[in-house]
Order: sequence, then structure tokens, then C-alpha cells
Amino acid sequence: MSVQWTRIGLDTGSPVVPPPIPAEELARRWDAVRRGLIDAGLDALLVFGNESEFSSLRYVSDYWPLFESGAAAFAPSGEPILLCGPESEAFAVQRGRMDRVRCIRSLRESADPSYPEVALATYADVLRELAVVSPRRVGIAGSFAANLVIMDELRESLPGASLVRADEIISDLRIVKSAWEAENLRAAFRVSEIALDAVLERLRPGLTEQQVVGIAQAAMYANGAEYEGMAQYVLSGPNSRPAISRPAPRVIGRDEVVQLNISARVNGYSSGVGRPVVVGTPSTAHRDLIEFCRDAHLATRQWLRPGADASEIARNYRQFFTERGRDDAFLYGPCTGLGLMETERPWIETDSNYTIQPGMAFQFDTFAQGPDVGVRWENGCIVHADGVEMLSSRHMDTYTL
Amino acid sequence: MSVQWTRIGLDTGSPVVPPPIPAEELARRWDAVRRGLIDAGLDALLVFGNESEFSSLRYVSDYWPLFESGAAAFAPSGEPILLCGPESEAFAVQRGRMDRVRCIRSLRESADPSYPEVALATYADVLRELAVVSPRRVGIAGSFAANLVIMDELRESLPGASLVRADEIISDLRIVKSAWEAENLRAAFRVSEIALDAVLERLRPGLTEQQVVGIAQAAMYANGAEYEGMAQYVLSGPNSRPAISRPAPRVIGRDEVVQLNISARVNGYSSGVGRPVVVGTPSTAHRDLIEFCRDAHLATRQWLRPGADASEIARNYRQFFTERGRDDAFLYGPCTGLGLMETERPWIETDSNYTIQPGMAFQFDTFAQGPDVGVRWENGCIVHADGVEMLSSRHMDTYTL
Repeated sequence: MSVQWTRIGLDTGSPVVPPPIPAEELARRWDAVRRGLIDAGLDALLVFGNESEFSSLRYVSDYWPLFESGAAAFAPSGEPILLCGPESEAFAVQRGRMDRVRCIRSLRESADPSYPEVALATYADVLRELAVVSPRRVGIAGSFAANLVIMDELRESLPGASLVRADEIISDLRIVKSAWEAENLRAAFRVSEIALDAVLERLRPGLTEQQVVGIAQAAMYANGAEYEGMAQYVLSGPNSRPAISRPAPRVIGRDEVVQLNISARVNGYSSGVGRPVVVGTPSTAHRDLIEFCRDAHLATRQWLRPGADASEIARNYRQFFTERGRDDAFLYGPCTGLGLMETERPWIETDSNYTIQPGMAFQFDTFAQGPDVGVRWENGCIVHADGVEMLSSRHMDTYTL
Repeated sequence: MSVQWTRIGLDTGSPVVPPPIPAEELARRWDAVRRGLIDAGLDALLVFGNESEFSSLRYVSDYWPLFESGAAAFAPSGEPILLCGPESEAFAVQRGRMDRVRCIRSLRESADPSYPEVALATYADVLRELAVVSPRRVGIAGSFAANLVIMDELRESLPGASLVRADEIISDLRIVKSAWEAENLRAAFRVSEIALDAVLERLRPGLTEQQVVGIAQAAMYANGAEYEGMAQYVLSGPNSRPAISRPAPRVIGRDEVVQLNISARVNGYSSGVGRPVVVGTPSTAHRDLIEFCRDAHLATRQWLRPGADASEIARNYRQFFTERGRDDAFLYGPCTGLGLMETERPWIETDSNYTIQPGMAFQFDTFAQGPDVGVRWENGCIVHADGVEMLSSRHMDTYTL
């Protein structure tokens, strides 16, 4: 079947996308990182990032590598240095926000080229340039991006140093959002809602899941997205059952559950608006699951308040499934942190140990798994001293098209 | 400015997308992996993958994780086991191609949730299930996806084993493509060319680089792409200068160089069609750079033949820049391997040490960097015994719109 969507254009509600992070805000982040590494007894901190795990690196540099990896090198004092792979120097100079850029061999791409013509620095060279000589303790942040190739070169280059995981130096800073960060989250959710509008207007049986992804992408890039915030979910029928999945070439049928999670990114900040929809008439079981899931979602929004205990929200949520006789539908939940990743620290889980505070941002990620399908209602929020600001709200009332 | 592209629909030249990898072909891959790990003196092999570095994992499992990481565990005999993160079990069962799926804590997402409700296996449990007890040497493939968190759990779970990099067991197998792989590369390039047509029809000054990305995405998903093959390049004016970059919110101007690399993915297989274009009239310097770069591209296509020495192609290429007085424009080149990654092993470099053979696939990735802009002509090919099959060819004659 042909996809002929017309006039996916600039929406009248298209947001004004904020400018890149102001230099003063970036400088405050660097100050905090230097204090953090000193408090942790480190001689230096390396913050790694790659194409899919870029959040901590982007937080301190605005640099988002592709193909290759990247890193930021911090010492207790002085300006940090941005590290990139052999092919990315011009990109890192142009788009990263540090004056000094150095190329490192182990940040190359996985094709493992040898680059006989490119001059490279070592990690030891970079630390010397930061006046860190013979370091004893070097922290690693962005450790989900610190791969075996990187770690091997690090150990060889810094044989006297112990390499210590120090993700929290960055991820703790990321928990409370600034006014500029809040503006980007608002813009990202606005773009996602525009893309959701475009999808709901055009979704029909006969399209494949992947074709519907294209509708969302067209609308979000037209209206200010820099990229997707996560891979879009358009999951139909049995494909909706997994909590994590990818759109397939499956043709969407009438009366089927179609799980949509539409996600745009603005200045690095992610969003995600999740809706289960049915073109036609859902079965009674599907209707019950969708409505139970929405009830759980709306209840969670009542529990999440400034000053609330995070684990209590999760326990209430778990209890809600039991009280409604839906233990079988529980997989995880109910909220994840929100920012540069669509799911980041801190999550709200039954073993969480913190209080909800102003400036925190969360995804209400309400997933209910039935025997044949899974459904999810998902919206973002920012916590303020006097309450919770919802970042998305459209299309909560009806789920049949 | 508004983007109102109409009727991006199913192209009449839309390819028939091949079915997922046949079970027999996957079984042959497993046989080869088992032989490879035995030859390397390993007791077991773990093949890691994540959202952006998935190629070796997908090669052996068709599994492409998102948010979380994944792995495939091979022993000298028996069926391999697919490993996923705590949230991906249903996804890995549904879309991965191994009968046994186990969840591992260190394959979780970087938000670092604790998942108090999920039952997990250890790496030692998995190897025991494969009848590998007290392994001495365990190979790691997909090592660019084997992050510090994974490696820490591995060392803790397998204290008696030495963990050995063994990427080549998989990446060597990937070098010569099967008939099914060739079909997917053909389809992916066909989709990319359809998307390039859509972009060239609609590109005009006043659109941002990112808005043009949306045009490409709409067309490729409409016509059979499962995803993009790499992040699209739409880089205008000074933004085109880096060899690696990302589209910006920059508004495209008249008479500027706009570097396009349009890239669709089909069944995992990537493609990329690169063209520098100018809406209006290029400066003499830009025209010279674009035409020099196209000359270098076409010359390389003459040198790449079955039986040719790879390093000689690269030396010829390097020499071409010198003879034309363009040493300043050289950065790297001229070809990269092509398959599940748009750039994979083996590259063609001056220190390459192999002969071009039937079944190999390459990108002619011809990049020339000027003082203010960079330009790239890029097309894919598959080598056959009697010559080279080009996978893309459209829009090579004119670069002004």
C-alpha cells in the first residue's frame, strides 16, 4: 500500500527551539565537575560518550559523536580538553564547546582502520597537558561508553593509575534541571506531540509499522527536532507485547492494538509521548488492558508530588496492580528520570531511596503487559516547588481512531 | 520557512525487501563461529552489541538491542544462547533467532536501574548451561560494545578466565557477502536512491539542514527501510567541512555547497549515497573542489578490481591528490568495507595487506576537504569474479539544482 501523506509541514504550534547551551551554564557545569572529582579524591576524570551513549559527554561538552567515540578530560583546575577519534577533529572543533581538541586512537570507529596519515595523542599526553603527571586515581564517567578498546589503551597509557568508575560525578549533576534544560524539554515534548498528531491523522490499516515511523520523522524534523529522542515505537498486535522493541515491516491490521511512542530530541534533550491506539474496535480484553493502564498512569500522576518518597510511589504503583487483579500485567515501573536520555537516573523503583524534589524531571512510563499485547501510556513532567508541570497531555481521552 | 512536501509515497522503483536471514544461512554462520573459537583456542566466545555497535551481534542472532545491550554466547558445540538486558526478554525471544534467551544485569541500560522484581542470570550460569565449566580463555567479540560495566561483571563472574579480544572471529566472516546479503545491500541502496530523489526534488534555500533530514526519512521509511543506515548528512556551507558531522538547525542558503549522504538500512544492511549539491551557482573554488573530488571518485572505481592489491588502490588515490596539486584536500580514503555497518572492515588504506576478492563489498567514500567546505561523492559496490557491480549510480552528472 502506498503512503501518501500530504502537507506534513510547519505546525502553527511549532515551538521556538532554544539556542545551544549558554557558555555561562556550561562553565558552571565544569566548575561542578572539578569540585566533584576533587571530592572523590581523583587526579583526573574522563567522561566518555558514543553515538548511542552520549549523555554525560554531551552534558559537559555539547559534543555528540557519531561513528567514533569521544571523551572530555578534566583535571582539578583548568579548562577541560575534548577528545575525539581520528576522523572527527574538525567536527569536534566546530561543534564541541572546548577550546582544545585532541585525537585519540582508541576513540576510532569499530571498523578498526589504521589511519596511517593521522597524528594522534595518548591519554597520558592529554593528562600532561592538563598538568596531571603520574596520576594515581583516574575517574571514568560515561562508563557505559567506555569500551574494551578504550580501556585497554587507557591501562597501557596510564600504567600507574587505578581507573575508578565515577559516573555519579556527572549523573548526580544531571538530576536537577536548570531553566534552560526545562525549556528544551518543553520544546522536545511539543515537537513530539506535533508528530503524534501527524501520525494519528494518517495511521490506517495497510501501512507497515516502519512506514508509520516515517510519518513521525517527517513531522518532527519539520518542526524543530535535531534528531529522534529514542527509536520510535510503532508496534502492532503481537509486536506490542515486549516492553522494548523495534518497528517491523509488519502490516498493521484493523482492530489491532498499535503502541505508539513518539520521541523527538531538542538540543540533546529527549522526550517521549506514548499512546496505545486501535484503528477500529478493540476486543474487550484489549479495552480493559488499555483502560487499566491509563488508570494506573493517572493514579501515578497523583502520587508524584514534591516531597514524596520515591519508593512509596513505586510501592503504591505495584499495589495498584495487585488491587486491580493485574499482577500478571506488571513488568516494571512506574517512572524513569528524564533529560538527555529518555530514561536516565534516577528511576522510581520500590528500592529507591530519595525524595522527589523541584527541578527533577520524570517520564510517567506506565506499561501493562497482557498475554498477547502490551500497552503503554507515557508522558513527561517537571517537578516544581508548588506542583508538577506535565510536558505532554494530548490524546489521553480517546484511543480508538 | 514552512516545509510542505507532498506525496512522498511509495516509489514505483521501490525494491522488494528480502525476508529475514534464512535459518540455514544463520546455522552456517554458527558453524563458522564455533570453528573459529576452537581454532583460536577459546573455551567460549561472547559476542556483544548495543544500539549503535550492533553489527557482530546482529550477524549471529539478527538481534538489535535498544536502550540495553545484548550478547550471544557460543561454546565449541551446541546451540548458542542469546543474552539481553532485564527489560528485553520478550523482545529477544520474539525477534532474536536463538531458542534460549537469558537476562544479564550488566546488559542493562545506562540509567542504571536496579530492577528489584526481575530474575537474572550470570555469565557463569550461561556458560555452565553451554557445558563450559571453569573456562580458562573466553573470547570477546563486538569489543567496541563491551563496556566497562559489562567487563566488570564478566571478570567477577568468571574469575579464573582470561578474557581475550577475538573480534576477528566474527568480522573475518563478515568480509565476503552471501547472495542474501548482496540482495539486502541492493535493496538498501535502492531505498537510499529513492530518498535522495525525494530530497533533490524538495531541497531549497530557507529549509534547515535538519528539516531536509525529515524529507529523506519520510521517503526511506515509506519505501522499505527498517531504519537509517547511518545518521543522514545534510551539511551546508561551513558545516560541510568536517568529514564526520551532524545536521544542524542552520538555514541552507543559495549558492552554498550542501553535502548530502542519504542512508537507509534493510535487514540490518546499510547503504550510503553521497552527493555534494548546490542550489544556485557554486563559486569557482567550490566547483573545482567538487569536480576534482568526482574525478578522484571515478578514478578509484577504475582501480578497484577483483585481484587488485588493496594498498595499491590507496596509494594510487593518494598519488592522485598530489598529481592534481590537491594534497591539502586529502584526509583519508578511498574505500571502506560495507555491510551491516556503512563503514566496516576491511578499509582500503595505504597499509592494507590483502587482495580484492569476489563477494567483498565496499563504499567508494571520496572526501575532499577545502578551506571552507568539504565535499564527498559516495557509492557502494559488490565485487564479482568478472567485475564490480555498482549499488548506486544516480545523480552523478549534475550537482547544481
